[in-house]
Amino acid sequence: MVLRLAKAGEKVIIGSRQQQKGEDSAKKAREILGAEATVSGMENSKAAAAADIIVMSVPFAAHVDMIKSVVESISPDDIFVDVAVPLSTAVGGSASTALGVWEGSAAQQAAKLLPPKTKIASAFHNVVAESLQDLKRQIDSDVIVCSDSQEVRRVVMQLAEEIPNIRAIDGGRLENSRIVEQITALLIGINARYKVTDAGVRITGLPAKG
Amino acid sequence: MVLRLAKAGEKVIIGSRQQQKGEDSAKKAREILGAEATVSGMENSKAAAAADIIVMSVPFAAHVDMIKSVVESISPDDIFVDVAVPLSTAVGGSASTALGVWEGSAAQQAAKLLPPKTKIASAFHNVVAESLQDLKRQIDSDVIVCSDSQEVRRVVMQLAEEIPNIRAIDGGRLENSRIVEQITALLIGINARYKVTDAGVRITGLPAKG
Repeated sequence: MVLRLAKAGEKVIIGSRQQQKGEDSAKKAREILGAEATVSGMENSKAAAAADIIVMSVPFAAHVDMIKSVVESISPDDIFVDVAVPLSTAVGGSASTALGVWEGSAAQQAAKLLPPKTKIASAFHNVVAESLQDLKRQIDSDVIVCSDSQEVRRVVMQLAEEIPNIRAIDGGRLENSRIVEQITALLIGINARYKVTDAGVRITGLPAKG
Repeated sequence: MVLRLAKAGEKVIIGSRQQQKGEDSAKKAREILGAEATVSGMENSKAAAAADIIVMSVPFAAHVDMIKSVVESISPDDIFVDVAVPLSTAVGGSASTALGVWEGSAAQQAAKLLPPKTKIASAFHNVVAESLQDLKRQIDSDVIVCSDSQEVRRVVMQLAEEIPNIRAIDGGRLENSRIVEQITALLIGINARYKVTDAGVRITGLPAKG
């Protein structure tokens, strides 16, 4: 996602547990993208403090800890975008099955951990990370965006559509993230059964964009 | 679905709580389809006894009762296809939200009520019933088929693909029906937000059919 968004002209900060690792990843990204791209690396809490939109993509096993590590750095003006999917792999299970989360979804779990006024969305669950990382790979998937704020949905949908061939879908309230997250488990199972790597999802029956 | 499958050449029996209502519906279907279509109507348990593939599409509030009313009529050679979606409407809630089902999904609830050897699949959840009924409407959706038996999936996928423009997707085990069913609630919400009636879903990234 870093490469795609930086390529689209966004100023991207890569967060990492260690400042140095963040800087190294940023350097690698700049080497791929060339001089016009703005990518820097920071320790997670500093990255969260510096960014306006915080996109958090971590394995579910690290979800709660990671949120706790940045919670002090997120201001009420920021937008927090949760990409986490509660795959059973977090507890040694299969990636094609999902865990039930007490709050309903990973995104709602995040909402419980963050201050009440935080602008929270969830998105990008159904696009394979490897496809986003490989600029040569054509993405063929919608990104369903959920948030309790329509304005936050609008901003995140706009961000997602900066990536070529991605169409953002208004997924409604954050609670709907429970369905969108679980679709990822279904797609991972489909990948296995069809021997593919990039199964995605497109919503049909919508009006063409004017 | 009756019209689509009968048009594709399948011999269709419409089940109804009352024999007469089934016969009336069948007569209407024959009037629409013309003389070459084979559609008859029967009381539910007789319809289930006569059919090889029993497709049950009922509101979730009627799901358990309906299964109980046909359970004696389903033989181990039959295939039972559950279309039910546990929408919250069953208990007076919104159609864009879903109920949690103790067994995991409507289809797994059915599996608990039917004899252990019953061949059970779930399918057709994400295609709008009105689109199936109106032969003039073009369908643009995949049908994700779940079953614990690969052979049953194959048969039901073949049946689904008799309907023009439907592509069947191997959804894996019956337990995955919990995800596929819930997608319906998401699509109903998308219909409302986008002011459309036929939002559907297509899986991307699969090999083209050879």
